[in-house]
Amino acid sequence: MCGHCVQCRTGNGHICRNTRIIGVDRDGAFAEYIAMPATNVLPLNGIPTTVGAVMDPMGNAFHTVLTADVSGSSVFIVGCGPIGCFAVGIARAAGAAKVIASDVNPKRLELARTMGAHVIINAARDDVVRTVVEETGGEGADVVCEMSGVPSALHQAFAAVRMGGRVQLLGIPKGEVPVDFAGEIIFKGITVYGVIGRKMYDTWHQMRRYLTAGLLDPRPVITHQFPLTQVDEALAAIRSGDAGKIILEIA
Amino acid sequence: MCGHCVQCRTGNGHICRNTRIIGVDRDGAFAEYIAMPATNVLPLNGIPTTVGAVMDPMGNAFHTVLTADVSGSSVFIVGCGPIGCFAVGIARAAGAAKVIASDVNPKRLELARTMGAHVIINAARDDVVRTVVEETGGEGADVVCEMSGVPSALHQAFAAVRMGGRVQLLGIPKGEVPVDFAGEIIFKGITVYGVIGRKMYDTWHQMRRYLTAGLLDPRPVITHQFPLTQVDEALAAIRSGDAGKIILEIA
Amino acid sequence: MCGHCVQCRTGNGHICRNTRIIGVDRDGAFAEYIAMPATNVLPLNGIPTTVGAVMDPMGNAFHTVLTADVSGSSVFIVGCGPIGCFAVGIARAAGAAKVIASDVNPKRLELARTMGAHVIINAARDDVVRTVVEETGGEGADVVCEMSGVPSALHQAFAAVRMGGRVQLLGIPKGEVPVDFAGEIIFKGITVYGVIGRKMYDTWHQMRRYLTAGLLDPRPVITHQFPLTQVDEALAAIRSGDAGKIILEIA
Amino acid sequence: MCGHCVQCRTGNGHICRNTRIIGVDRDGAFAEYIAMPATNVLPLNGIPTTVGAVMDPMGNAFHTVLTADVSGSSVFIVGCGPIGCFAVGIARAAGAAKVIASDVNPKRLELARTMGAHVIINAARDDVVRTVVEETGGEGADVVCEMSGVPSALHQAFAAVRMGGRVQLLGIPKGEVPVDFAGEIIFKGITVYGVIGRKMYDTWHQMRRYLTAGLLDPRPVITHQFPLTQVDEALAAIRSGDAGKIILEIA
Repeated sequence: MCGHCVQCRTGNGHICRNTRIIGVDRDGAFAEYIAMPATNVLPLNGIPTTVGAVMDPMGNAFHTVLTADVSGSSVFIVGCGPIGCFAVGIARAAGAAKVIASDVNPKRLELARTMGAHVIINAARDDVVRTVVEETGGEGADVVCEMSGVPSALHQAFAAVRMGGRVQLLGIPKGEVPVDFAGEIIFKGITVYGVIGRKMYDTWHQMRRYLTAGLLDPRPVITHQFPLTQVDEALAAIRSGDAGKIILEIA
Repeated sequence: MCGHCVQCRTGNGHICRNTRIIGVDRDGAFAEYIAMPATNVLPLNGIPTTVGAVMDPMGNAFHTVLTADVSGSSVFIVGCGPIGCFAVGIARAAGAAKVIASDVNPKRLELARTMGAHVIINAARDDVVRTVVEETGGEGADVVCEMSGVPSALHQAFAAVRMGGRVQLLGIPKGEVPVDFAGEIIFKGITVYGVIGRKMYDTWHQMRRYLTAGLLDPRPVITHQFPLTQVDEALAAIRSGDAGKIILEIA
Repeated sequence: MCGHCVQCRTGNGHICRNTRIIGVDRDGAFAEYIAMPATNVLPLNGIPTTVGAVMDPMGNAFHTVLTADVSGSSVFIVGCGPIGCFAVGIARAAGAAKVIASDVNPKRLELARTMGAHVIINAARDDVVRTVVEETGGEGADVVCEMSGVPSALHQAFAAVRMGGRVQLLGIPKGEVPVDFAGEIIFKGITVYGVIGRKMYDTWHQMRRYLTAGLLDPRPVITHQFPLTQVDEALAAIRSGDAGKIILEIA
Repeated sequence: MCGHCVQCRTGNGHICRNTRIIGVDRDGAFAEYIAMPATNVLPLNGIPTTVGAVMDPMGNAFHTVLTADVSGSSVFIVGCGPIGCFAVGIARAAGAAKVIASDVNPKRLELARTMGAHVIINAARDDVVRTVVEETGGEGADVVCEMSGVPSALHQAFAAVRMGGRVQLLGIPKGEVPVDFAGEIIFKGITVYGVIGRKMYDTWHQMRRYLTAGLLDPRPVITHQFPLTQVDEALAAIRSGDAGKIILEIA
């Protein structure tokens, strides 16, 4: 965020073209010292520091879910990594009538169920689209949040959304994916939204409110905690593919 | 709803000028026989008939709450009659961060608490506006739903809403109420919405979804049930002022 | 705008509670010297300085008109002072199907016509509400912008808006005005919006775009120009009640 | 439109799954006799019959343009067939600050200019994306309407829209088109909307208002008129690729 362009000055700093992402464009929190711009600092106001530590990725989930109209709706979360699992909990807290989650990893599906998914679908075994359509009275889901970036899952997202529904895209596919624009998007009259970052600062304020109000407990997604000295074990746990979020404690 | 005017044809049948309200402009359900237009009939799909019997007034509460943005917000419900108590439950189900309710009747306040109010205010005894402001970190409530129609409560609604917030007006004041437009509305930059009826048919579909999904259990608001033969006792209970909704059973 | 509160950080700096209005809470441009915060300075990018000089009040008109949905709509502007006349031009530029304007001053009504009003109503002589209803096919206006602050005009605003329409309130009535909430607001299902200041910075960017694109020529509203030395003549012209905006030239 | 499903009952009849399109699913106006459902008939109220004859495709253009926020915006129309040319005129009437249109056919580009395009781009010769970016101060267009269905044009649509902008898809590509979801949609934070049919009946009412108010004169797009007996000449003119809309007169 530069703070001076039209985007920054109209509440859209998340798509400022001058953004220098901390940890990408300049040193992040793995550096020995870090100077943080004041505008990036937010008081936790009683939110536990373990939760504070995951508010960056959880903010992506808030941005994804709360820019759709989920109250009373059926919501299909495609991909149950940490951000997908956060999204399940947020959709429940925001009054979704039915939350359906899919993944190929049974451990992640269990985590999604813990976070409140009414229906979980093992995409390695079950017919994803048929299950979503059946669970939504034959209509398809009102809102689909694609959190996996897997091309086959992307097509499932378009196939499982109802006519006139909304697909939120957060997962990043590698390379190009062939799309049947007519059948998957246009004739269905759907809206597709590309989710990038967190809204400055709408998302942050919404997230802080949900957390301080106790609408959402994201801690089940934090599956491991290590002291900073065991950073190697932490990285190994991430690589295993079964972990949710992992906290490094700075003594 | 005439079905032919611009309002009816653009999803705003609730403000069709040709509406003939059943029970007002023509015989209602207290007549010996009633012919009901097909467009007024909705299958309950498993919703209990006792709940079905209160869906008309509960629809006003859905219309009031869901035309504001309550997810993650602080919501102040002014007046805890049956519709106010429904509104408390709906606001909770839709992800309100904090629900505050006020009334002068302790029984109604208890019912509001049963329906999920975080904070209840006895308007006969406590400083309503100061309490709301304190409970919202000094800002005032994001959304205020005025369900009482009492002039003093109306002023509390305007005083308790935050800068840029939203006031939903459902309660019907008798006669004129003097308003300080500058201080109560304009300088606060608020939006005021007049709630009439239920949206055709958005409100009905939302309500049915909330109920079939179990997001809301409105039954605590139904405080009495009588067989049809005891209609006089039912009317006496209504007049007592302590009842919520009362069901007459047709054997 | 403090730049740090929730309002400022979510694009609502116009309702920041810490705002110190220049010219009200601190010295304005009539002081010998003025220090202007950088965030209050905007390059004109080719907009003439005479137009730049009226962008503050014209911003109120942009905020009023563009927070309603005027494209293809009937718009009734109540009060044809300079801000009302700007609003007429903005509504035309934004694609209003019919713009109706009322005032008691024939000179101001002529100015409204110059700015593009399709219909002008002399409120001292004609039946305002009946004319608006007739000119809108019996429905009433989709959008009403109340720019006068006169109590009788306020009631005309509510009476002339269609069922489900929108009333934008900018004019500041002195003291309290008795309102029939049931008949004027609730049963009509309308939305009322209190317009304060200009949105930071949405309004400013929209205004700059309209002006640089030539969608609107506000110069007819500038009825007088004086050198700074003739400030007394300028003030006399304002007091006459017939002037639009008056420019003081700093040599 | 079946009139009974959730979509039909909430103002979304254009995506009713039971729709039987006249001329596709049942006989259209080329049959000797046609029985037309009453809900498909609209009085013209003074709109000339030649204009009435093109309101079906023009409705697609209205749906495309008016579901984006074009007031004060830069709008890029990709493809200047009849619907694209209608869209140019509608965007102008709705207060677009700058309308840019592209096509490979110089005759169609001239028609777009006649309808009000500020900038025309010959896609066979000029660098489309660079021109749009330059004409929008380096930002890209706020709104892009893709009316061609040509895969290369689709990529230009995504490349030419600004960060956080909106792409309306009406043109139907044949088969699949490879898309870089990350670069073309997600990282840009854009919204993509699939335009199907016309909204029942929002689009029809908006269109009738624009036409009766004279905000738009679509007649330049009607390039030919033939008596019904010369239907073969009419079809030949269509096949030539240079025609706009062609009217057959029924004596």
